[in-house]
Amino acid sequence: MTVKVKTDYIEEIKTLLERHNEAGLNHLLSELHASDIGRALNELTEEEATQAFKYLEPETASEVLLEVDERLRKLLISSITSEELIEVVQELETDDAADVISELPLEDAKQVLEGIDRQESIEVQKLLVYPEDTAGGKMQAELVSVSENSTVEETIEEVRRKSRDIENISNVFVVDSAQRLTGTVGLDKLILAGPKTLIKDIAEKEPVKVYTDLDQEEVAKVFQRYDLVAIPVVDKEDRLVGRITIDDIVDVLEEEIFEDFYKMAGLNVEERVMDPASRSIWMRAPWLFVNLGTAFLAASVVRFFQGTIEQLVILAVLMPIVAGMGGNAATQAITVVVRGLALGELSLKNARWVLYKEATIGLANGLMTGAAATVIAYIFGAPPIVGLLLFLAMTCNLVIAGLSGSLIPLVLKWFKVDPAISSSIFVTTCTDVGGFFTFLGLATVFMKMGLI
Amino acid sequence: MTVKVKTDYIEEIKTLLERHNEAGLNHLLSELHASDIGRALNELTEEEATQAFKYLEPETASEVLLEVDERLRKLLISSITSEELIEVVQELETDDAADVISELPLEDAKQVLEGIDRQESIEVQKLLVYPEDTAGGKMQAELVSVSENSTVEETIEEVRRKSRDIENISNVFVVDSAQRLTGTVGLDKLILAGPKTLIKDIAEKEPVKVYTDLDQEEVAKVFQRYDLVAIPVVDKEDRLVGRITIDDIVDVLEEEIFEDFYKMAGLNVEERVMDPASRSIWMRAPWLFVNLGTAFLAASVVRFFQGTIEQLVILAVLMPIVAGMGGNAATQAITVVVRGLALGELSLKNARWVLYKEATIGLANGLMTGAAATVIAYIFGAPPIVGLLLFLAMTCNLVIAGLSGSLIPLVLKWFKVDPAISSSIFVTTCTDVGGFFTFLGLATVFMKMGLI
Repeated sequence: MTVKVKTDYIEEIKTLLERHNEAGLNHLLSELHASDIGRALNELTEEEATQAFKYLEPETASEVLLEVDERLRKLLISSITSEELIEVVQELETDDAADVISELPLEDAKQVLEGIDRQESIEVQKLLVYPEDTAGGKMQAELVSVSENSTVEETIEEVRRKSRDIENISNVFVVDSAQRLTGTVGLDKLILAGPKTLIKDIAEKEPVKVYTDLDQEEVAKVFQRYDLVAIPVVDKEDRLVGRITIDDIVDVLEEEIFEDFYKMAGLNVEERVMDPASRSIWMRAPWLFVNLGTAFLAASVVRFFQGTIEQLVILAVLMPIVAGMGGNAATQAITVVVRGLALGELSLKNARWVLYKEATIGLANGLMTGAAATVIAYIFGAPPIVGLLLFLAMTCNLVIAGLSGSLIPLVLKWFKVDPAISSSIFVTTCTDVGGFFTFLGLATVFMKMGLI
Repeated sequence: MTVKVKTDYIEEIKTLLERHNEAGLNHLLSELHASDIGRALNELTEEEATQAFKYLEPETASEVLLEVDERLRKLLISSITSEELIEVVQELETDDAADVISELPLEDAKQVLEGIDRQESIEVQKLLVYPEDTAGGKMQAELVSVSENSTVEETIEEVRRKSRDIENISNVFVVDSAQRLTGTVGLDKLILAGPKTLIKDIAEKEPVKVYTDLDQEEVAKVFQRYDLVAIPVVDKEDRLVGRITIDDIVDVLEEEIFEDFYKMAGLNVEERVMDPASRSIWMRAPWLFVNLGTAFLAASVVRFFQGTIEQLVILAVLMPIVAGMGGNAATQAITVVVRGLALGELSLKNARWVLYKEATIGLANGLMTGAAATVIAYIFGAPPIVGLLLFLAMTCNLVIAGLSGSLIPLVLKWFKVDPAISSSIFVTTCTDVGGFFTFLGLATVFMKMGLI
């Protein structure tokens, strides 16, 4: 199986559903990976999706539920009986079960928690108390742990026993008599050792671990830093309470990067494209109001030079170009700097060098685009002296763009504020105010000097 | 070891270097994880970093080289003798060795390839022919493979033998007599099976695999879709040639998301924050020139209404507010839509719904911020009728922002063009032109009607 061409089997599912061909559907669905089925359901109509979902075995159904989008998941869950739902949840790993249950209405959640295995129910309820975006909220209770005095033989036996129920066992965790984590052993090292060896003798002491309350972004960074595939999670007393596997962390990483850019665009990090409009309106409005304030700030600069514009209206025609080019150049600078800070390619040690660099880029690109603008403005019918004005103001504003686009995220970082948040609003205010001020200000000076 | 507080040991390294305390340095560095040492070197001065680097064992030095930024890596490599470099490269995994060697000047690269193990040299040279951003460029030659007719016992013996040299063995790959991949077995499944079982009987048939020429972004998607920790890479004849592990893919994923936002900001995806200014200038200039063109397009709308502005200069003061608010609202819409498309939360099936939703958000936020703008404009000294104009134009332009901010990425996606690329430029052109046209156009109509 390589990457499947989606349309192939989506069309096949549609046809089989239309013909009510049960045997064909059972056969096709049993051959597909759960993640491919999930992607197919996302593409079908709601009616087709709920119909197809009924043909799935509980184990596949449980995996498919995790692959579809939240809206469809709710629909699929509401389309099956509570007995069927209990069967499906029973098949999930504890962390996924906790996620699904937390999305259910309270009554249904209770019913499911009472219906599933007593032991699993206890584990899931423990997980439900942790905030979703912490190590505790991301961990699963499924893991293999042995006491320090176990032999390799006994440990392998434990892996065997557990591997019937647990996916992705890559490590065995070693604990002392008080359940405190004392080491980890990779399966490859386990295979390497003699059967009578004590596990504590081959375990990695002081293993990388995280506490339940650590933010998921920090957990992701630890995974990256140490190239891990799984990490043990401990409580305040260092007792082993769960593990997090890399597949859950990959999604966290994606989310966190998108959040940077959400913040730059003045978006609430909770907003999703499939949210209802009513929710999005309220999440986007605050930043737009802040922007309105800064827009009036820039407008007051223009008002200050109202007399100058009255004498030469072409200035009003050209001034948005100066401000707009500054805004674009600034967005380039912020994006590069925010990325550098996020990936650790840029540290405050190099801050001065980056400021100097961005000012240089602004100067060079200001001279080039400014020269081009002068030529276009001349063709446009503006007097040559206004073209010179445009050239000077654009060069100046692109330097302002480079300086503010790098300085503001760096200063936010220096004050330990997220460098992405609101960077754009501060920076575009600088380039709007800077653009209008230099262009109209220079025009006023030129007029006073009798040049215009 | 949990997350280390950086400053602790960075200061310690600095102090030990100053005092030339060799024993202390050796002890401290031997206790730190390579990735922590790498982060420390990034923070030190160049001189301190090269000094500290000399205290590292070849194995640690090789890992540290992978953790520091490219500029420092070049410096560290040039600070050691070619014999030392050969020793360091010898310790690297083949994919990392190929990456390091590809950064060397041709003469040095040759020397290293001749100096290292013959077998490793052949493997590395094979990897060097694949483009960097394909599966072939990301894979390593280190893997465990056995023939179909091996027993579990023999396979475990092979894992034992290889695990002395290979990190992160999570799977064994099964091949036929022509080296064609026929299956994979996880280590946990291997432990579960009886020693005399044939490997082909427990192997997963039709394993997920990728071809050497697949783009790294697609490889990352396959990892995510199937929650993998390692994937086999095959050539056109389906022969097993390497494997890719999840730690390399995590970096690819990060890179690809950042690329979306780079494209939105009109940046070349190759640009890095530590690039010299001269390189950045040329990479950023093209988009700025395109923007200059669209800025003059918007300016020509203003020029069309020059007569109107001459009669009422306050219009020139307020018009950037209409355009600017539209631009900000549009950026919010594009960011949400591009993210939704990238994560697969949004498919073209829901395109019409999203368009309708974004128009609704634009209308609601346009009405709200427009009303606020009217009040502020009144305080600002604008006549009430101009306030009404501002209200109407802002509402209208925020609807334009919502529609263009969602329609343009969706249309690009429809035509199988990256929805991130140039979205911003098209959309802000719409909101600039739309903002100036509605505001100044309505003003002209109002004037003709004698309302102003």
